[in-house]
Amino acid sequence: MPGEPPVPVETTVPASGAPAVSAAPVTVLGLGMMGAALAAALLRAGHPVTVWNRSSAKSGPLVAQGALPAATAADAVAAAPLVVVCLLTNDAVQEVLDGLGTTVAGKTVVNLTNGTPAQARELSALTAERGARYLDGGIMAVPQMIAGPDAYVLYSGDHRAYETHRATLAAFGGTTWTGTDPGRAALHDLALLTGMYGMLLGVLQAFALVRTEHISAEEFSDLLVPWVGAMLAGAPEMGRAVDTGRHLTDVSSLAVNQAAFPNFTAAFRDQGVSSELFEPFQAILDRAVEEGNSADGLSRLADLLTLGR
Amino acid sequence: MPGEPPVPVETTVPASGAPAVSAAPVTVLGLGMMGAALAAALLRAGHPVTVWNRSSAKSGPLVAQGALPAATAADAVAAAPLVVVCLLTNDAVQEVLDGLGTTVAGKTVVNLTNGTPAQARELSALTAERGARYLDGGIMAVPQMIAGPDAYVLYSGDHRAYETHRATLAAFGGTTWTGTDPGRAALHDLALLTGMYGMLLGVLQAFALVRTEHISAEEFSDLLVPWVGAMLAGAPEMGRAVDTGRHLTDVSSLAVNQAAFPNFTAAFRDQGVSSELFEPFQAILDRAVEEGNSADGLSRLADLLTLGR
Ligand SMILES: NC(=O)c1ccc[n+]([C@@H]2O[C@H](COP(=O)([O-])OP(=O)(O)OC[C@H]3O[C@@H](n4cnc5c(N)ncnc54)[C@H](OP(=O)(O)O)[C@@H]3O)[C@@H](O)[C@H]2O)c1
Ligand SMILES: NC(=O)c1ccc[n+]([C@@H]2O[C@H](COP(=O)([O-])OP(=O)(O)OC[C@H]3O[C@@H](n4cnc5c(N)ncnc54)[C@H](OP(=O)(O)O)[C@@H]3O)[C@@H](O)[C@H]2O)c1
Repeated sequence: MPGEPPVPVETTVPASGAPAVSAAPVTVLGLGMMGAALAAALLRAGHPVTVWNRSSAKSGPLVAQGALPAATAADAVAAAPLVVVCLLTNDAVQEVLDGLGTTVAGKTVVNLTNGTPAQARELSALTAERGARYLDGGIMAVPQMIAGPDAYVLYSGDHRAYETHRATLAAFGGTTWTGTDPGRAALHDLALLTGMYGMLLGVLQAFALVRTEHISAEEFSDLLVPWVGAMLAGAPEMGRAVDTGRHLTDVSSLAVNQAAFPNFTAAFRDQGVSSELFEPFQAILDRAVEEGNSADGLSRLADLLTLGR
Repeated sequence: MPGEPPVPVETTVPASGAPAVSAAPVTVLGLGMMGAALAAALLRAGHPVTVWNRSSAKSGPLVAQGALPAATAADAVAAAPLVVVCLLTNDAVQEVLDGLGTTVAGKTVVNLTNGTPAQARELSALTAERGARYLDGGIMAVPQMIAGPDAYVLYSGDHRAYETHRATLAAFGGTTWTGTDPGRAALHDLALLTGMYGMLLGVLQAFALVRTEHISAEEFSDLLVPWVGAMLAGAPEMGRAVDTGRHLTDVSSLAVNQAAFPNFTAAFRDQGVSSELFEPFQAILDRAVEEGNSADGLSRLADLLTLGR
């Protein structure tokens, strides 16, 4: 899928302690861990909030905080011009939208469910057919961070809808615009989460390794967090190498990394830890060296991950 | 392999700007990217440094900085009571030590080559047979960080040797003692690097994904580094869950992560990016949910990585 030209990502951080710009009514569909946090943040920002969840019991705590419960998704949607959706998957979103018929006409649907760029484009087309505006969003926070200083949401799709509702959406944290291609927020979201999953995979494997020697994983974090953080600070330089295709390094070559890798596999085996998560990394290192890139840095691996290069 | 009881890790950071405590002579074997950085740091700290490298051309720049070149490893070892070794692998270290005969008797060998706990224990036994003291070390830095504020080296093995040479070793950065089991530093080192490799794998996969939409990897780092850093800050809490076996979460369940995972695979496929590095993560998530842990957090995966649990 050809991309639209790069749009500089633009972030607005809400002025902390500022009064709610408007008390526009909002509907929230889905009250799982995340949806409940979103609805609570809107309530705290002073918005009238109508809530709906498939299993109705989850409305209780929100109603106690001042939300209005709706018996059906259609009732909920009828209650406000802005509809925030946060369900488990976009299949669920599609299912709920299909049940709404034309109730969504004239509304703005902000879908904060995790999904792919392709799904976002489909849902955008579907809502447009039904006379609604569509914004797709990727939440860069866990529920406990919502409305806090580090939380933000990536948006893409209908830019006018974004401008109209931005002040309301700021109840969740920063708002970051990524482009008018509805799939753009999901692409950024998935890429950021990809980085996170890699980090988590490494942290969990490290914990599995140290616990075999009765080292506390929590205490080991005192070493692990600063170390991984220090290495993470090298990402922009690796990014520059990826952008420019200049991978030659005086830091740590693929050859050195390849030579060290069997030590990991051997230590995992000796200590009784599965190496399943790291085996593909060994394989791609080997391939990179075989292809003659042994003097390059690890940034070269981004090329090997790009198919049809 | 049964572990020794947990030893609290103890770190000493060199007082910056303090004069070199002693000008004890030091020998450095191996002048690759890392060995050269170590030798240069010792020279800057005022130590007489004798250097040796298998291919002698690499001595040049160090000699220009004031090092004494030795024609053979044995000559180099004869020149100082403290011998720092940094070669590509411990197989190379073993080979070089084998060629030294009894020259090492009475010396302290500090091996900073990346290796496994088992290799460290073997090399410790081997040097002991030859009348030398052995310290194993894991360098937590890239060459450019050596002697800087964030660099440190993990040590284990002969504690008296460590105490004797600690002030000299502080030329590289902080010194962190991990225990008298010679394999202890390597275990910590490999675990920290495991965390790093996971993070790098995630960052490289993220770069491969965004570049398909002509987004600069360097610019994307402006979003990626703070996001992964914020998520990394949750490691101690995950560590506590691993330590206590209490994995139930109100943050992000295995079920939610499992539901989102096909979005990654689909987006990688749609965008023409290999998903090979992430496939085992999907597999272990599936296994964790199948085993009935869907309400647990990701910390549960550390259990699934532990064989024979
Ligand atoms: N938790 C996080 O840290 C986090 C962070 C960023 C993004 N997200 C994303 O936010 C979304 C929600 O996550 P969550 O943590 O809130 O998950 P959750 O606690 O498991 O909640 C899932 C929600 O989806 C609803 N649902 C599932 N299938 C449905 C269907 N077919 N029709 C109607 N409703 C359906 C559930 O309703 P019932 O109560 O009736 O089952 C529930 O409200 C996911 O896409 C997730 O990836 C989560
Ligand atoms: N670079 C880093 O960021 C980093 C960070 C932490 C730890 N380390 C570890 O430090 C060690 C050295 O890494 P590096 O980056 O310096 O690697 P490097 O630049 O590739 O240097 C490798 C060194 O090992 C020598 N060597 C290899 N095989 C040998 C053998 N059979 N006999 C004698 N010498 C041999 C090489 O000698 P020749 O010049 O003759 O080939 C060279 O001096 C590795 O264990 C690495 O994992 C590196």
